[in-house]
Amino acid sequence: MSRSPQTQDIASPWPLHAWYVAAAADELADRPLGRTICGQPMVFFRGAEGQVVALEDFCPHRGAPLSLGFVRDGELVCGYHGLVMGCAGRATAMPGQRVEKFAGIRRFAVIERYGFLWVWPGDAETADPARLHHLAWAESPDWAYGGGYYHIACDYRLMVDNLMDLTHETYVHSTSIGQKEIDEAPVETLIEGEQVVTRRFMDGIEAPPFWKMALRGAGLPDDQPVDRWQICRFTLPSHVLIEVGVALAGKGGYHAEDRWKAASTVVDFITPETETSHHYFWGMARRFAVADSALTDTIRAGQGKIFGEDLEMLERQQANLLRYPERRLMKLNIDAGGVRSRLMIERAIAAEQATPVDAAA
Amino acid sequence: MSRSPQTQDIASPWPLHAWYVAAAADELADRPLGRTICGQPMVFFRGAEGQVVALEDFCPHRGAPLSLGFVRDGELVCGYHGLVMGCAGRATAMPGQRVEKFAGIRRFAVIERYGFLWVWPGDAETADPARLHHLAWAESPDWAYGGGYYHIACDYRLMVDNLMDLTHETYVHSTSIGQKEIDEAPVETLIEGEQVVTRRFMDGIEAPPFWKMALRGAGLPDDQPVDRWQICRFTLPSHVLIEVGVALAGKGGYHAEDRWKAASTVVDFITPETETSHHYFWGMARRFAVADSALTDTIRAGQGKIFGEDLEMLERQQANLLRYPERRLMKLNIDAGGVRSRLMIERAIAAEQATPVDAAA
Amino acid sequence: MSRSPQTQDIASPWPLHAWYVAAAADELADRPLGRTICGQPMVFFRGAEGQVVALEDFCPHRGAPLSLGFVRDGELVCGYHGLVMGCAGRATAMPGQRVEKFAGIRRFAVIERYGFLWVWPGDAETADPARLHHLAWAESPDWAYGGGYYHIACDYRLMVDNLMDLTHETYVHSTSIGQKEIDEAPVETLIEGEQVVTRRFMDGIEAPPFWKMALRGAGLPDDQPVDRWQICRFTLPSHVLIEVGVALAGKGGYHAEDRWKAASTVVDFITPETETSHHYFWGMARRFAVADSALTDTIRAGQGKIFGEDLEMLERQQANLLRYPERRLMKLNIDAGGVRSRLMIERAIAAEQATPVDAAA
Repeated sequence: MSRSPQTQDIASPWPLHAWYVAAAADELADRPLGRTICGQPMVFFRGAEGQVVALEDFCPHRGAPLSLGFVRDGELVCGYHGLVMGCAGRATAMPGQRVEKFAGIRRFAVIERYGFLWVWPGDAETADPARLHHLAWAESPDWAYGGGYYHIACDYRLMVDNLMDLTHETYVHSTSIGQKEIDEAPVETLIEGEQVVTRRFMDGIEAPPFWKMALRGAGLPDDQPVDRWQICRFTLPSHVLIEVGVALAGKGGYHAEDRWKAASTVVDFITPETETSHHYFWGMARRFAVADSALTDTIRAGQGKIFGEDLEMLERQQANLLRYPERRLMKLNIDAGGVRSRLMIERAIAAEQATPVDAAA
Repeated sequence: MSRSPQTQDIASPWPLHAWYVAAAADELADRPLGRTICGQPMVFFRGAEGQVVALEDFCPHRGAPLSLGFVRDGELVCGYHGLVMGCAGRATAMPGQRVEKFAGIRRFAVIERYGFLWVWPGDAETADPARLHHLAWAESPDWAYGGGYYHIACDYRLMVDNLMDLTHETYVHSTSIGQKEIDEAPVETLIEGEQVVTRRFMDGIEAPPFWKMALRGAGLPDDQPVDRWQICRFTLPSHVLIEVGVALAGKGGYHAEDRWKAASTVVDFITPETETSHHYFWGMARRFAVADSALTDTIRAGQGKIFGEDLEMLERQQANLLRYPERRLMKLNIDAGGVRSRLMIERAIAAEQATPVDAAA
Repeated sequence: MSRSPQTQDIASPWPLHAWYVAAAADELADRPLGRTICGQPMVFFRGAEGQVVALEDFCPHRGAPLSLGFVRDGELVCGYHGLVMGCAGRATAMPGQRVEKFAGIRRFAVIERYGFLWVWPGDAETADPARLHHLAWAESPDWAYGGGYYHIACDYRLMVDNLMDLTHETYVHSTSIGQKEIDEAPVETLIEGEQVVTRRFMDGIEAPPFWKMALRGAGLPDDQPVDRWQICRFTLPSHVLIEVGVALAGKGGYHAEDRWKAASTVVDFITPETETSHHYFWGMARRFAVADSALTDTIRAGQGKIFGEDLEMLERQQANLLRYPERRLMKLNIDAGGVRSRLMIERAIAAEQATPVDAAA
């Protein structure tokens, strides 16, 4: 197998041999979807059996974006002159033309699972389905999920930093999930297998507004002291899942029985678009009141507002860093989660650069 | 005659010794008009006898755009400090100043004809009125004309390609003038003197919606089979005139008597602004129902909608090509019209580079 | 004292050792204010005693703009992770952290006076309060003041040129303060100490609309001939104060007793933001009807409209100059004020480059 020069020969700011969320599954119905992932313009569509296909968003005929076209019989028809692009990235037909010798375009490996489309931006031949994360909450009837999407104009790693250090909640989200006890509680950072974990426990505190809402949703009183926890788990390439919750104080906290707590997982899939922008798929999976779809909507609206608060801060931070590229940022104990996560990313990139693709595949 | 260094010493992406449409004549009344043509900011205004004048849009005093000024007694007064610029590009007066030694600015040759302003972006001394196209339809009472203007953010040659290969109508304009028979009919490309011609004939087909409207406008039934034709004619520097029409089937098609057909000429004057943008003057000249101004408006509205559909495709194609500058596009038989037109453009540019201006003048 | 490399080692397009207006004092209340001055992003806030503090707008922790934070107990709290930045540019606290060894950020010297915040963009140690202009009108009950702010996308020196040559009023402001007599009156340019002065006197003319309004405001008839004057005074770094007014004709003009005239000072503080943009603080200080706040509002509205007319001209002029960087502009007699002011600026910059900071401090 030969190496593809466009993906291997220059240092990449992100791992390429990994599964990234490209879209929520319900974003893709009858029409093609164009989206740039890890610097590569891609078009997604559904083939004849409904399977997801990901190709380079570039018609080999005249360079038009294929995502401006339409799907017919499970193939993608270019909206400019009607070249029919098959699921393998080879033209299969074009009115009045013999297409056998037409140049092909890149095909990307893609998997639909857990309600998302996962794409592998490295060479498709190296794609390893076994490396797709297992998300138990996405397959279990014991969990409910709601989420959304933001496009954010900053390096995806600034979002990883953001989520691996929740002390920012006290400041950025002071009216919803922030409270001064977050600042005051010590944070632990540790490596658990292939995860970077930061965690913080706050016992006997008053729940902030978002969690009072969640307690009511779970059928629990919102006026009593609670034990609160936050356990952030980074995994390659750039996913952050955060176990969060509150239990009525003294019932065991994180380990309390379900009837005493409102517990959920904040889901953050962070997909690079360019070096200074990313796609942010956020949501919350919860184990309480799972049949209550109104509560799902309320939580989604609350999360949407909270994550919107991060957006301005991150984009302005990015602008400041571009202005002062030579400055070294501090690495405090609270930053250890981001620092260790970035190190894991750098090692993955270095390993890709060093490893022949044949061995990796 | 000496060569002007700013126009001759570097390769140009467009011929300079040629007449381009700068504006519709009715765009220019009492106020000056600023417009960049072939990379050069120009100001247009009417002199004392109503004649059109084109100058560099740069006041020699302090660099203000002269197009922000006003016209007084057939001269252009700078809106900043009142320098009076004469029709020859020399200051003629300025309050409290002696202007004899003021630096002049460039004057461009310009002709008003056929309802348009035609400018020659090369040295004015080389301008040859004999090289202005003759447009019989623009001077004859047997024809009616209506048209409009779009600014499009792509290389003007992508628009030439677009118009010299009408197979795109099937896809881009599927609800108005597109139909699958365009794809299916063979296309011919030939050189006729100084024209590149591509043509296509479709006999015994159903007229698409735009042509049904035109048939009704011409007093003909819209529910009968028609013979349809498209004859695209490219001429330097970048004009595309397209003979289009439908005749009731079996009456002779393109050669049918006027009473059996709705025939017109699609007019496309494509004027470079920058290397990645152009001015697009589009319209339709027709030989039926010429006194029906309501029909003129209906056709203009229909064309405006149709050409607006091209706009997104062309601008997105341009963006894709800028992203992949090294890729070679295909040259299929349907692309032959564009390919031959670009070759004619390249030869004209090369001839300008090689020819001393004295000889060309 | 050591030299700060970021301010001294490259040529600057503006003097750094000078006081610039950063804001109107009432722009700064409880929340911090971010503004870029002379290319440097700064955050302004009020310390515990209400004093103004100016710091670099960059949190040393993670590079967030401090201006997105908030003020608590006279210190600036970063809105991202709660670093507390003291008035000296050193972190004083951060939850869970020892901040003694945190990197500091730049502090800028700043003075609140005359209703404005004045900042010294050079090293704070070199700031010399004695070099702040004395503005008598701003401290006297005999004067009233009203003004506003515009952000303008052009080199600050183009605004200096504009204000030191008021012949443009005839053209740019033809409906308010312009009149052809400005063009016709000779202009004088002279150096008075550290000022560049241009002046023009127009006797026995009809007052233009703005001044008719002012005459009525001063309780004087608006239908009689007046003597009008304009005396523009440039001082470093880039302030232009213009004595303007009209007196009933034959009463002594500029030297007439107050009861015969409407006299005021146009105030223009021009603060560079980047090389192609500046902050423009404009206003009018007047010695008539000082208790009439409705008149203040009327004048402010009139000035706002007038200075808005300059804005398009200046921004388009800037665009033209960027397109033709090699062209030399003319230096006519009417331009002498701007030419001499620019020379004074250049000499100040050269002196800063040549002078060791120790000597300048």
